[in-house]
Amino acid sequence: MIRNIVCARKMTVMTGMFAPTFFCYKPFSSPLSSFTTSHPFSSSSINHTFPSFSLSATGTTCSLTWDDVFRISKSETAIEEDPSSYLQGFFHKVQLCNRASDKQSEFVPFIVEGRDVGFIHNRFVEHLRGFNDVFVFPNDGGPLGYYVTLHPLLKTAEERTSAVGYVVKQLGEEHIPGIRNELYPVKSSFSTPAFFSLERAAAPYFGIKAYGVHMNGYVELDGQKHLWIGKRSPTKSTYPGMLDHLVAGGLPHGIGCLENVVKECEEEAGIPRSISIKAKSVSVVSYKDIEGYRYKRDVLFCYDLTLPENFVPNNIDGEVESFKLIPVEQVAEVIRRTQFFKPNCAIVIIDFLFRHGYISLENDGYLDLLKSLRIGDWS
Amino acid sequence: MIRNIVCARKMTVMTGMFAPTFFCYKPFSSPLSSFTTSHPFSSSSINHTFPSFSLSATGTTCSLTWDDVFRISKSETAIEEDPSSYLQGFFHKVQLCNRASDKQSEFVPFIVEGRDVGFIHNRFVEHLRGFNDVFVFPNDGGPLGYYVTLHPLLKTAEERTSAVGYVVKQLGEEHIPGIRNELYPVKSSFSTPAFFSLERAAAPYFGIKAYGVHMNGYVELDGQKHLWIGKRSPTKSTYPGMLDHLVAGGLPHGIGCLENVVKECEEEAGIPRSISIKAKSVSVVSYKDIEGYRYKRDVLFCYDLTLPENFVPNNIDGEVESFKLIPVEQVAEVIRRTQFFKPNCAIVIIDFLFRHGYISLENDGYLDLLKSLRIGDWS
Repeated sequence: MIRNIVCARKMTVMTGMFAPTFFCYKPFSSPLSSFTTSHPFSSSSINHTFPSFSLSATGTTCSLTWDDVFRISKSETAIEEDPSSYLQGFFHKVQLCNRASDKQSEFVPFIVEGRDVGFIHNRFVEHLRGFNDVFVFPNDGGPLGYYVTLHPLLKTAEERTSAVGYVVKQLGEEHIPGIRNELYPVKSSFSTPAFFSLERAAAPYFGIKAYGVHMNGYVELDGQKHLWIGKRSPTKSTYPGMLDHLVAGGLPHGIGCLENVVKECEEEAGIPRSISIKAKSVSVVSYKDIEGYRYKRDVLFCYDLTLPENFVPNNIDGEVESFKLIPVEQVAEVIRRTQFFKPNCAIVIIDFLFRHGYISLENDGYLDLLKSLRIGDWS
Repeated sequence: MIRNIVCARKMTVMTGMFAPTFFCYKPFSSPLSSFTTSHPFSSSSINHTFPSFSLSATGTTCSLTWDDVFRISKSETAIEEDPSSYLQGFFHKVQLCNRASDKQSEFVPFIVEGRDVGFIHNRFVEHLRGFNDVFVFPNDGGPLGYYVTLHPLLKTAEERTSAVGYVVKQLGEEHIPGIRNELYPVKSSFSTPAFFSLERAAAPYFGIKAYGVHMNGYVELDGQKHLWIGKRSPTKSTYPGMLDHLVAGGLPHGIGCLENVVKECEEEAGIPRSISIKAKSVSVVSYKDIEGYRYKRDVLFCYDLTLPENFVPNNIDGEVESFKLIPVEQVAEVIRRTQFFKPNCAIVIIDFLFRHGYISLENDGYLDLLKSLRIGDWS
């Protein structure tokens, strides 16, 4: 059963993010090392019928509709049931969130109060040198080597937040695009107090761990689980028009995880507190993604919410264009065979597939794929 | 709702396994380092009313009944709801499966075809020296250092199985007690072929990874999940009279995981194939436990099975004395506050508690506890 909530319309989706940036990382080199692709929407080297995407004149945009999603989700390609290759499409989605691990050596540790809190690209470090009352650049000649830390006169969280905030503002959109005026806590681990807070857009430039909450909302109909899938607004600055699970949000400084889930449920899907408060924290995924000077180290707390059969999500904040209720098996096929989903949402749904028994142990690479869902430091 | 299937009777439970072998390991030193206990059945330093155990004259046995279980499961101790200490009882159960990690240096790598497959205690190695047509003891003077491997003339899995089997037989009950005449595969990882097969009882003496299947069977009644809990037969050679989840079994050579679940479901709980075939593989836990010359490296594939409301388990093989259906929250309390459960079953149920949202992120140590469920190499 698929519920059509908003009539899908043609829209433009950036495909720059679909560039095949494949690499092979060690934890599961065997299933990944043979990975190839020939189509920007393919995540598998196996031939199957692709939806009719309209690539634009520039080659950087294409159209994605719900019809495309359903065509893929229901297509049957018996050859792909081969347990030796079945998981490859999932591995690829994990790769998309864990790019360029070989570039880690270009980053310098960012240390506060003797604890690792981040990584800064050695060329981005040069932008910080002018602010020598905020940052210092020791080289202990010992195990740490060369690293970046805060000026010792910045002793309190408030002083640090203010001083680093000043630097971020000075560097401006040229060096740190997309300023959101939203503060993220800078921590060495989730359960310890924040050393200071940092503008959200700056987090990947300082390589700090960013915590978030991601929620799968599902309904059980006639014994079959269905996931509510959102299609992002075409005007979103990131991943416009792509697919999402039901609700997600970064975890800003000073708000609890469940409270944030409740807030995002209201804003993104119109789920009232009386329902969203029943969301359960069920797992954690993490990744580390390097792109130029940016080092994203995200830790996502996964929530599940069983929704009433008659509940229909309704986006409030304009960030979601439409929702559909899709059987879990079909969602799995879309993830496996396409890059329609925002990459980190794909990982969160793969985690759901494991926990709800949709990925069989009989498939080669089961343990490697499960391991790959927590590649980043998730302390 | 608690279903009483077999009238519980007083029985004797060994308490040797309850000796407080506490230690502090690094991944989560903070929640564990302050751990103390004063009662063999306590897993918390907080005072609460213990059930009336009858310690025997020798002090090595005591009685455990379902009444004891229910008294603990329903007791309310508000002070323990403190999120800074709530998880300590769970951490302790993980510790019980991960003892003596500081003794790892007493073990020598066991290498086959250049791959690590196990660890052998340096004094147990002395027992193998007489069999120099089976084992050799190189020292490469390089990164491997001193290690144990098989004689190069043993080329096939069959030759190795036969030769090592001969050694195990010669060493006999004196050195390898509890021979079961059941073969376990010796592998470097789950998805690779076995190098040879080894008597199950010998597995910890060679430190090989042993794979198993553990299944939680549950029923949803009025929106509340209940777990079927078994009480082991008093005549079991291991952990007699203690609590178990519904079904578990080692994974012998040559049988698939789900097939093994189906087989164990039939033998241990009388669950027909028509129901058990619906069991879902949902997670993995692992631990590494050192006790004398034994190095247990277990990897347990966790299954969930939703059972019909009217299904009542019925033990066939005599290994379970009785079953009860207990609300998950109460099972959690028993695990947290006592050592009534066979230790590795406690870990599998803690994993269930995470996946089904019974452990809140708001508790200190959430991520450390989640991490601790996979301390052993689970490749």
